[in-house]
Order: sequence, then C-alpha cells, then structure tokens
Amino acid sequence: MWQVFAEFHWDASCNQGGGGDKEMMHTSESKNGQGKLHHPGRKMANLREISVSAALNLLSAFAFLVAFAILRLQPINDRVYFPKWYLKGARSSPSRSGPSVNKFVNLDWRTYSRFLNWMPAALRMPEPELIDHAGLDSVVYIRIYLLGLKIIVPLAILAFLVLVPVNWTGDTLEDIRNLTFSDIDKLSISNVPDGSKRFWVHIVMSYVFTLWTFYVLYVEYKAVAAMRLKYLASEIRCPDQFTVLVRNIPPDPDESVSEHVEHFFRVNHPDFYLTHQAVYNANKLAKLVEEKKSLQNWYTYYLNKYERISKSPTVRTGFGGLFGKKVDAIDYYSSEIQKLIEAEASEREKVLSDPEAIVPAAFVSFKSRWSAAVCAQTQLSHDPTIWLTEWAPEPRDVYWSNLTIPYFDLTIRRLLMAVALFFLIFFFMIPIAFVQSLANIDGIEKVFPFLRQLMEKESVKSVIQGFLPGIILKIFLILLPTILMTMSKIEGFPSISSLDRRSAGKYHLFLLVNVFLGSIITGTAFQQLKIFLHQPPAEIPKTIGVSIPLKATFFITYIMVDGWAGVAAEILRLVPLIIFHLKSTFLVKTEQDREEAMDPGCLNFATHEPRIQLYFLLGLVYSAVTPVLLPFIIVFFAFAYVVFRHQVINVYDQKYESGGSFWPDVHQRLIIGLLISQLLLMGLLSTKNIDKSTIALIPLPILTIWFHFYCKGRFESAFVRFPLQDAMIKDTLERATEPNLNLKEYLKDSYMHPVFKGRVYFESPQISDEESNTLVMTTRISKQCAESCSTNSN
Amino acid sequence: MWQVFAEFHWDASCNQGGGGDKEMMHTSESKNGQGKLHHPGRKMANLREISVSAALNLLSAFAFLVAFAILRLQPINDRVYFPKWYLKGARSSPSRSGPSVNKFVNLDWRTYSRFLNWMPAALRMPEPELIDHAGLDSVVYIRIYLLGLKIIVPLAILAFLVLVPVNWTGDTLEDIRNLTFSDIDKLSISNVPDGSKRFWVHIVMSYVFTLWTFYVLYVEYKAVAAMRLKYLASEIRCPDQFTVLVRNIPPDPDESVSEHVEHFFRVNHPDFYLTHQAVYNANKLAKLVEEKKSLQNWYTYYLNKYERISKSPTVRTGFGGLFGKKVDAIDYYSSEIQKLIEAEASEREKVLSDPEAIVPAAFVSFKSRWSAAVCAQTQLSHDPTIWLTEWAPEPRDVYWSNLTIPYFDLTIRRLLMAVALFFLIFFFMIPIAFVQSLANIDGIEKVFPFLRQLMEKESVKSVIQGFLPGIILKIFLILLPTILMTMSKIEGFPSISSLDRRSAGKYHLFLLVNVFLGSIITGTAFQQLKIFLHQPPAEIPKTIGVSIPLKATFFITYIMVDGWAGVAAEILRLVPLIIFHLKSTFLVKTEQDREEAMDPGCLNFATHEPRIQLYFLLGLVYSAVTPVLLPFIIVFFAFAYVVFRHQVINVYDQKYESGGSFWPDVHQRLIIGLLISQLLLMGLLSTKNIDKSTIALIPLPILTIWFHFYCKGRFESAFVRFPLQDAMIKDTLERATEPNLNLKEYLKDSYMHPVFKGRVYFESPQISDEESNTLVMTTRISKQCAESCSTNSN
Repeated sequence: MWQVFAEFHWDASCNQGGGGDKEMMHTSESKNGQGKLHHPGRKMANLREISVSAALNLLSAFAFLVAFAILRLQPINDRVYFPKWYLKGARSSPSRSGPSVNKFVNLDWRTYSRFLNWMPAALRMPEPELIDHAGLDSVVYIRIYLLGLKIIVPLAILAFLVLVPVNWTGDTLEDIRNLTFSDIDKLSISNVPDGSKRFWVHIVMSYVFTLWTFYVLYVEYKAVAAMRLKYLASEIRCPDQFTVLVRNIPPDPDESVSEHVEHFFRVNHPDFYLTHQAVYNANKLAKLVEEKKSLQNWYTYYLNKYERISKSPTVRTGFGGLFGKKVDAIDYYSSEIQKLIEAEASEREKVLSDPEAIVPAAFVSFKSRWSAAVCAQTQLSHDPTIWLTEWAPEPRDVYWSNLTIPYFDLTIRRLLMAVALFFLIFFFMIPIAFVQSLANIDGIEKVFPFLRQLMEKESVKSVIQGFLPGIILKIFLILLPTILMTMSKIEGFPSISSLDRRSAGKYHLFLLVNVFLGSIITGTAFQQLKIFLHQPPAEIPKTIGVSIPLKATFFITYIMVDGWAGVAAEILRLVPLIIFHLKSTFLVKTEQDREEAMDPGCLNFATHEPRIQLYFLLGLVYSAVTPVLLPFIIVFFAFAYVVFRHQVINVYDQKYESGGSFWPDVHQRLIIGLLISQLLLMGLLSTKNIDKSTIALIPLPILTIWFHFYCKGRFESAFVRFPLQDAMIKDTLERATEPNLNLKEYLKDSYMHPVFKGRVYFESPQISDEESNTLVMTTRISKQCAESCSTNSN
Repeated sequence: MWQVFAEFHWDASCNQGGGGDKEMMHTSESKNGQGKLHHPGRKMANLREISVSAALNLLSAFAFLVAFAILRLQPINDRVYFPKWYLKGARSSPSRSGPSVNKFVNLDWRTYSRFLNWMPAALRMPEPELIDHAGLDSVVYIRIYLLGLKIIVPLAILAFLVLVPVNWTGDTLEDIRNLTFSDIDKLSISNVPDGSKRFWVHIVMSYVFTLWTFYVLYVEYKAVAAMRLKYLASEIRCPDQFTVLVRNIPPDPDESVSEHVEHFFRVNHPDFYLTHQAVYNANKLAKLVEEKKSLQNWYTYYLNKYERISKSPTVRTGFGGLFGKKVDAIDYYSSEIQKLIEAEASEREKVLSDPEAIVPAAFVSFKSRWSAAVCAQTQLSHDPTIWLTEWAPEPRDVYWSNLTIPYFDLTIRRLLMAVALFFLIFFFMIPIAFVQSLANIDGIEKVFPFLRQLMEKESVKSVIQGFLPGIILKIFLILLPTILMTMSKIEGFPSISSLDRRSAGKYHLFLLVNVFLGSIITGTAFQQLKIFLHQPPAEIPKTIGVSIPLKATFFITYIMVDGWAGVAAEILRLVPLIIFHLKSTFLVKTEQDREEAMDPGCLNFATHEPRIQLYFLLGLVYSAVTPVLLPFIIVFFAFAYVVFRHQVINVYDQKYESGGSFWPDVHQRLIIGLLISQLLLMGLLSTKNIDKSTIALIPLPILTIWFHFYCKGRFESAFVRFPLQDAMIKDTLERATEPNLNLKEYLKDSYMHPVFKGRVYFESPQISDEESNTLVMTTRISKQCAESCSTNSN
C-alpha cells in the first residue's frame, strides 16, 4: 500500500501546476495487484498508517499553502495571483511607490503573519456580488463543492451516529483474530457477521441517505435554475438575447447565402426579422493572425536580447531555428512580420469580397427577445435537417470552425466518435503498452546515439527503466483532456461551452471505468469488459460490491493525495508562475505585453467537474459501507470550496459565460453516482446471506430513476429554452425605458469573427472609466456585455 | 408438435371473430416443453408434415373466404360488410327493389361465381383517393403490410438463391444419419458443419439483409413523412390547426380560469391570441348521457317485443332485472328515461354555470396557423410544469378525462405504470395460475351447486378439467389489450391517438417477451428473467440463438394459424355479424336505430400493430437462419394487405385521424426487431467455432443504432412539430382566398365536450348534399373537417 502512496506522492509533487492529473497513476499499480481479488487476507493499512499518511499529506498541503502565502505577497508575482483584478482594471503594475526592491519583494514582515487571511477573504464576498464579479458559471461551479458538503456532512453525521456503532459492535473480525484486518475495517460493514439482522440498519440507512440526497439535489437544482433565470432576466442587453444561430442553410442557385437568409426570414418571420450577420470562412485568416502573433513574440524576444547583450542576435532560418543560414534576427523577424501583415491584408480582402467565403450559416437577429425565443424553439422548414435554429451562443462562446457541418456529416461524426470513445476507454492501454515497449533503453539509444554513454550508467539506467513506463502513461493522461476535447470538436458542436460539456461527459466515463471500477476490480478496462460480458448481470454488482470495503483505505489515500494535495497545488499555480516569469523576462517590452503575458486561466469545467464527481461517487458508495472515509471527503470539499472561491475572485477569467448551463449534466452524473452506489450495496449485501435484502433495496434505483426524470421535466427546460413570458417582460420593460433604441445599430457587428474585430478578443476588455476605480465591481455588468456595449457605442 | 398445432387450431376456430388473440396460447405448451432446451434430438416436423399443416390451414382460410363471399352478398348483411359506405351516405338500406325476399337473401347466382372479386376491387382504389376515403391513418397502416412485402420478398429471393444452396450442400445432417432432423433443417444453418468457412456467406448475407432493410425503412419513413406533411398542408381548414391545448393552468386567487387564460395569452401572444374554449368537468354528465342511452335501448327492446307478442311486457326493477317488483316494462323505462332527462338537464345547467366545473385546462385558438405553431412549440412560463402547451388533438381525438392531471401526479402515475407493466410482463402467470387453481371442478360446484349433477358426468368433467385452465388464460389474453389501455389512460395522455400508441408499445413488449422469447427459451417470462439475470450477457444471445433454428417449424405453424387463419377470420367479421343481427332483431325500430346498430369497428392499432411486428421480427431473425420460413410470412403479408385494404375501404370507420403520427413507433419497433435478429445471429454463430464471427458482426448493431438516430433526426420532427414555413404558406394562401373569413365564429364551439354537442359524436356525420351521391368521395374532405364545417356553418 505504501508503494502506491509513494508513487502517488512523487506524482503529486512533480505535478503541482497541473493540479490533479495524477489520479490514474494507480492503473499501473492495479496491474501489479491484479489477481489479488477476493483475497480477504490482503494486507490493509490500519488506523495508524492512515493517520501517518494523513499527517504527511496535511503537511504537504500546508507546505503548499505557506509557499502560496509567501509568493502571493511578492509584488513581482502580483499578476500571477491577482490577474482578475488587473483585467478588471482595479490593479496596475506600478501600484506601489517606494524603493525599487519593493516592486519585486515584499519586505513588510507584518503581512506574512496574516498568511491565511485569504481564506476568510475568499468567503466574504456575497453571492450576488460574486455573480457580477466572475459570472454565473463560476458561482454555480463552486456551488458544486458546497453541494458536496451539503450532501456528505449530514450523511457522515448519521453514519457515525448509527452505522459506526452498529459495525463496531459487530465483532466478526474480533472473533477471527488474525492480523489481516485493520482498525478501519472494524468500523466498516465487514465487521458485521453474515446473516446478521444488523444489516437491516444499513438497508434503512441507505434509504435515508438516498432520500437526503434527493432532497439536497432537488433544492439545489431548483436554486440553480432560479439563479439562471434571474441572471437571464437581469436588465443588461446582450446581442445573444436577440439572435438565433441558423445552420444548414440550403444552397440556392439564384441567390447568395445572405440574400437567401434575408428573404427566408422576411417571409417566415415577417413582423420580427431585423437583420442578420453572415459567417465568413476565416480559418485561413485566423491562422495567419496566429502566426503573426508568434513571430511578434520572437521579435520582442530578440529585441530584448539585443538590449541586454548589446549585440545583434542572429538566427538560423531553417527548421526550428536549428539549420540553415544565419541572419540578423531582428531584421529577419521584422521582414517576416511585414510579409505576414501583407498576406493577412490580402486574405482579409479576399474573404470579405469573395461570396464563396460566406458559409451556409448565419446569425439572425430579431426585433425583440420574444421573437428570437420563438425562432430558436420552433422548426422552420419541414425538412428538419435544413434551416436549423438554436439560441446563438454569446459572441465569445462561438466555436467558429464548427458552424458549417452538414447534417449527415454530423451524424457520421458522432457515430465515429462514439466508437472511438469506446475504444479509448476500454483499449487505451494497448497503444500505451506498445509505446512503453518501444521506449526502453535500447530504443532510446538507437534514436539518440549520443545519449548512449549516459544511459549505460547503472543508476541512470535503473531510474529510466523504473520511471519511463510511468511517465509515458502520465503523458497520455495529461494529454487525455485535449484528446477528448478534440473528439468533441470533431462532433461538431457550435459553441465552446457545449464542447466543454461534451468533453466533461467523456472524461467522466473514462474516470468511472478506469479509475473507479479499475481500482476496485483491478485490471485494465479491457479485462473488466471481459468480466462484464462473461459474468451474469446479477453477479457483477456482487463482484464489485464485495471488494468495495477492501478498497476503503486505498481510496482514503487517493483522496488525500489527489484531493487535498491537488487542491493545494491548484492555489500555488506553479506552472503559470514559471511561465509568467519566463515570459516577462524574455517577451515583455510594454505594459501591454505584460498584460498579455499574464495567464489568468479559467475554471476548466471539462476536466475538473468529472473529478469532483469521483468524490461524490466515493462519498455515496462508502456512506453505508465504510463511513470512516467520509470525513476525508468532507475536508476535500471544504478545502476545495475555499480555494476555488479564492481563485474565482482573484485569478480566473472565464472565456465565456453560459449562465450555468452545465448544471443538468452535473445533476445527471450525480444521479449516476447514486445509482452505482445503490447497485453496489445490493451486490455487497446479497453476499451476506440476508433474506430479501435485494428485494428491499430494489425500489431505490427505481425511485432514483424516477427522481431523475422528475427533476429533468421540472427544471431542465430552464437550461435549454427561454420562456416566452420572461422574454415578453424584458421586451416590455425595455420598450418603456428606451423607446428610441436603435437595435440594428447595436447588433451590427456583434457576431463578427474575432479576426475581423482586430484584437478585441485577444485583449483585455476596455472598461469604462467610472468603473475602473472600485476594487470590487458592484455594478451589475458582466464582462461580455460591457464589452459588446463598448464595441457598439463607438 | 401436432399437439400444439391442434391446440392452436382449436383456438383459432373458436375465435374467428377476435381475429388473432390466440398467439399466446402456446405459453401453456411451453411450460410442458420446458427443460427440453438444448436437446438436439427433439422431434421436429419434416417437410411432409409442414405441407399437410399448410394445406389444412390454407383450406380453413379458404373456407373462411367462401363463407365471407356468400355472406357478403346477402343484402341482410350489407350493413355488416359495407358499413363505411352507409356512413358515407353512399348506400342506404332499402336500396334494392323487387320481391321482398331479395331484401334478405341474394338469389342472383351469377354473383356467387365471382366470389373472389373483392380482392382486385380492394387493390384498385388509388392511394390519394383512399386517403380521402378513409383517412391517412388507415392508408399508412396498410402500408405496414406492404412494407413487410418490400422487406421480406427480396430477402427471401436472396436467401433462396444464396443461403439455401449453401446450407443444402452443408451435409452435416446427412453424415449424422439419424432421424431426428427433418428436411427443413437441411435447408437451414444447422446443416452447415461447425467451423466451416461457409458461415462467412451467412455473415455477408446478414450485412446485405440489414442494408436492404435500412434502405426500405429509410425510403418508407421518407414517404410517410412526405405523405403526412402533404396531408397537413392540404387546403382544408380544421380547428386543430389554429388551436393549442394548454394544460396545468396555475390557479389565480383573483380571476377565474377563463379570465386568467385570456389575460395570460393577451399579454404573451399579444398580436395573435384569438379566443379560447374552457374545458368543463363533464364526467358526471357524460355518465348520465351514457345511462340514458342504455335505457333507451331497453325501451326500444320492450317496444319491439310488445309489437311482436301484443302483450305488455313486464320487468323486475331490482338488480339486473332478476329481483324486485314486476312492473310494466314500457312505462317503467319511459319514466326512468324521463327522470334521467331531467337529471341531465339540471346537471348540464350546473356544469355550465358553476365556475368550479371549469378545469385548469383550455383550448386556446390563434389568429393564424403560424402563431398556433409557435405557441405549441415554445415554452411559456419559466416553470415548465405550468402553462404546458401542445398541439390540440382534433376534437374527436381528445380524451377528456385526462386533461386536468397535475404535473407531479403525471410523473408518479408513469412510475407506477412502468412498475406495473414490468410485473404484468414477467409475473402475469402468477395470478392466472392462482385463478386456475381456484377454478377447478370442486370450486365451481361450490359456487353453483345446481350444476353439480351435470359436472359429475365423466365426459363433461374431463372436458372442463382439460379446457378450463386454457380458457382462463385465454380470457386473460383477450382482456390484455383492455388492461394495457387502462394503464395508458392512467398515465394521463390527453388524446386517444396517443393512448393507442402507448398501449401498442406496452403490448409489443409483452409479445416480445412472452411470445417470441417465451417460445424460444420455453418457460414463463419470470423464469426467463431469472436466466437473464444469472447468465453472462455474452451467453444470452448464445442461449437464444442456438434454439432459433430448432423453433423454425413451430413458428411456421404459428404463422399459418395466427397469421393466415387470423386474417381470414378478420374479413369474415363473425362477432360484429352476430351482434348486428341480434341488435337489429331486438333494438331496431327506425332507420336511425339501424344506423346505430351498425358497428363498423376500426383499425385497432394498439393490438394489431404489435402483432405485425412479431412477423417482421420472425422474418428478420430467420432470414439468415432458416430461409424456408420466409415464404409463409410473405403469404401472410400479402393476404393481410389485401384483406385490410378491403376492410379499410368497405368496413372500418376510424374514430380519429392522427395523420399517421404512429409511424415513428412502427419504425422504432422495426429497428428493435433488426437489433434482436443481429444479436441472435451473433449468438448462434459464436457457438459454431468460427474465428472472429462475433467481431465481424459487431458493426451491424452499431450501424443499426446509428441508422435509428439518423432517421429520427431526419424525419421524426415531421410527426411531432409543425414547421413554421408550411404554416406561413397556408396562412398566406388562406388570407388571399378568403379575406373575410370570420375565424372566431368558425372556431367557436369546435372544442366542446361531446355531451354538450347533443348527439353529434355518437351519430354518423351529416354529409352535405352535393357529396352524398358519389359512390367514391373524391373531394378532398376528410370526415372530421366535414363535420366541424357543418357544425359551424349552422
């Protein structure tokens, strides 16, 4: 067990920046542990060992926190730990006067004594203000951690009051009197003798737990739906409220796409059609802009270098700057940039003038929110594969390259991606094992002969042989979210928020199969698949259920390493810290460069949320089995809540605002966790020789499924549709307060591809003067609205 | 095997009227046959036996046809075999002049010689005319049989050209040289030796079969969707085009329901709201009307009796006319009717004046089809459980008692019914076995002591003991569609068409589990469930697949008895024939009474369609396994197509017109059949020791599921939504042709509960004069439109 832990710990400490990519590391361990299934005498950690491990992990988390406390007080790191405020305009670099060293190092020792101050500060900002400050997405996201507390804390209290005494006095393990069971197992269901009537307490408690979870989930879904509706109903005018994204516009031999759209909507929405914005195929242009930006970075780098060393730097023009002729770097890059600027200008000209560059999709705007809501929710043509309408995502949220995929292609892409996901989940070990077999010492020596001498040393050799397979797996796991996101992009969703949601779903499946089930059944997912196919359905929950109590200590360790240390690493932001300092050393010339070097990052819903779900799942599964695991989860949720609240306030800058539209997914995955926990409890109890335990538990999953459909019917529409009543209220209000509004002018360029807008989307937003002075913005203006307002008021 | 056949045949011959309730009879047989699974030496019918059975069945079907040919030519049966034409007004009773005996018996011998004339006549009417004559539902329904031919005929040709030779020369069974295998098995896959490369022919053919089925299904879905859209776009004005059913109207303390609806829609659809019709809780009134009708029947009966026997008939007033005081029947009933008329009048008064009698549902009408389409497809309130809108079903189709169920109740009801359906499918044998154990000779003697003497006779006793359990099962199976319909009604769907569709889904599941799987695995559904739970998922298709070829002869017999004879019985209409003659003897006084005594019946989608699906399933499953079964299915489909086309033209009178909205269900069930056939083939081949056969077949189910989703996305919306483009075209057309239309007046009473409309819905529709003279109505007027037009033009 300690081996795993050590491996995890090594893993955690060398990945502080990633903040949690390490939970799959144990699959390699699992392979070693394979075949030990059903072996009751397997050595398990006892309470003392767990305490030591907990202490170690607390210590490392504490070390992270201290490091954070020190680093964040240094002015030189200010842009790493408080980028949000810079973006809001509430801070700027040369904010402190005094001796120049103060610009880099904080010498005021008193501030260090209050090094945990950020925690209450993070909790202090009230929720409505936080919504204004960071957007609804972030607020709803950190509510997931709070939801974890709301569900697990009462479960833990009940479990410790009722189940732990029942288990403790069960005395099975006392009787056996061998040393293979630990103290933790005495508190778990394993301590209750087979066939005991005590199991009915567990059955009753599982009902109580489920009902409590239902209650909390229901209240939360209701609250989030209400928050979303309130948010949407807030008075700010946004282009997406009036706009519908129309895709799959059929070609017309006589008309251009633009004319076709206009005629079609003038006929079918005669009283409401206002205007539309064509979508240009600007992929090539965007690539040029991207290229130019990279060259400009190099240009600045060499300019800085020149200033420092006062000698004209040179560069080779060949592949990667390694081969080719040596030229003067500054001249070379400035001429390259010049070339690109010309190419960009001609391409821009071409795209804007060429009718072929207009793709069969458009953003159609209406005269009122009511009519936009109508158009988004109804079917236009009798062929449901053309003139597809849906709510336009907000301008930042549009994923431009996916707007033009024909309907048939979409279905084919989704089929292929579903098959690919299946193989990725169940067979991902095969290519990795193949690469691992290639990447041995001999292979490396063949490719890089100059490394031979180094590699032949015994110590280096053993390190490489020991770590290389792990590192290759690790690299795959770090790449995994990107792979999943690419798959989602291929599936063709038109907005970044929906891509995030889809990727999260895929990642959740992966974690469920490869981490949760993989840890319990031990063995690769492919072996699990075999087990599932060749075992009776009634046996599967038994097989898994039986090993659940045996795995409690493993998961406790997992929670501490991945959860506690991972969250502490999250707040330290080691990777952004390093990158920022590298950038500001080499690339920064102007204040604006410094602004761009700053990487506030954002809540990565696609990878973080599925990981939270794993903790929910563990909490629900172990609540009736080994309640001693619950406090560890509670610590995780509480700690993560504070940390992420702090990050949301001070660091992250969301790329888009979807109004919490991911909540139905979160809810659904929680229901899946609940179902899994119930099935596993059924499986576990059915091996304990109690009459009718399975029958007594069968209503639970049925109730859960019903609850899911009830909540879905009750609340989901708040996340996918926009009710006409609300739209009408807003329209009426607006008409009364601003009778002379020129909506057409307001909407004119709101849905333009970012490359045409110059640098608006690559820069920080322009904040109007009266707002930039307050530290905490309390005016009810969310970022993207402010942005589009300022864009349109020009 | 012959025992089964005999049982079926007895079953078929005593149930000619029902026309196919007999397919579950074999479950009792299955129980006897239980345990014989995997017994390769089980005695199977050979080709000769099958031929004899086929000849017998053809003969009985022929006998039905001859009987039909004779009976239909008798004028006295005219209203039984041609009710549709009476309802259309194209025929009336005293149509033939001449000697009075001619009114009852057809003495023109020449007509008998052309006794199969109805067949070409049934095929002659072209489809567009048939849509006008019988409605789109009927036309789409009989296309299901045609679809069967389109799928199965090419499958059969290919199978006989390719698979039968491959199987025939397989020679496994020749080598074994025992007598347990029949000639049929030599043509089936059983004749190919294990591990033979010949199985690859089967695998390739299963791909060809699947792709062909895809093609036909796609084309058919497309055609039906186009027919539906064309039908909806036809120029007739119908109230349901302008109307939306609004349910779950929230209570308002200050306003009545009517005022609340009006205000709400005036605010939220300001430019389009036209009027609305409140829904009255007239359940009690409807009951009174029903009661009055029954009393009137008795009154007529006694009046007729009085005329015949010239003696005033008497009746007892007590329970069921068996006990109580004797009174003069005519006086008694006329006074009772008088009482009811008064009660009805006061109840009618009460309902119309009492604001409490208005339920929180309403039919809201709009000024244009466009705005009705908008309202039906959008969400009104931000609480999606109130102000629920959907397309109004056409007035005849409304199921009035289900309009007021609150949202929460609905979800609870659906949960309960899902659980009930599960128990009904898997445990229905338990109550039946219980009743069977009660209903033995001793039990009957106890309840009816006066039967004791009769029952003690040896011959009677043995008959009762032999048949009673079968009869009880039979009664259950006859009642089953009613039970399922009741369950659907409890689920709370607001229209009769949706109730029919839901019931069909339930019945399909029942047939699938209890008839198809029940026949193959042998054993009650509950035992099957046990097998499924305790067998690995990979084993289940094997277990079933292995017994598939063994059951071919059983299913051939089944097709002949249930399919051929059942269809022949359908055309004979024995039960309506008898009931009509009973009614016309005892209850008919006036021509209008005779009109009402006529029972045209209608296509019973809820019971017939799931049965067709069983034949599709058999065809798909056996196409690659035992192709010799296919011709029997082809005969069934062809025969049924002709018969039902005849019935639709001459007999049935549909209760509602849903525009073929059941097609997505039909398609989905066909996909389920296709999936089952693929899984079973995989299971069967995996026992034949061929490498990679399973892997080679795995893409099939994946492709099938993808095809399902593709078709769903492509066509389904035509059945659930109404595109705005089409609505706009119709609106524009109408505005141009009828600028002065008073729509409000037209819609005024269209959605009134039938009891308030007097007898409109219990009577035949009033046909306007210019249409009643043509034998085949070719004017594009469907019945309900004609009806509502005539109602509104008064």
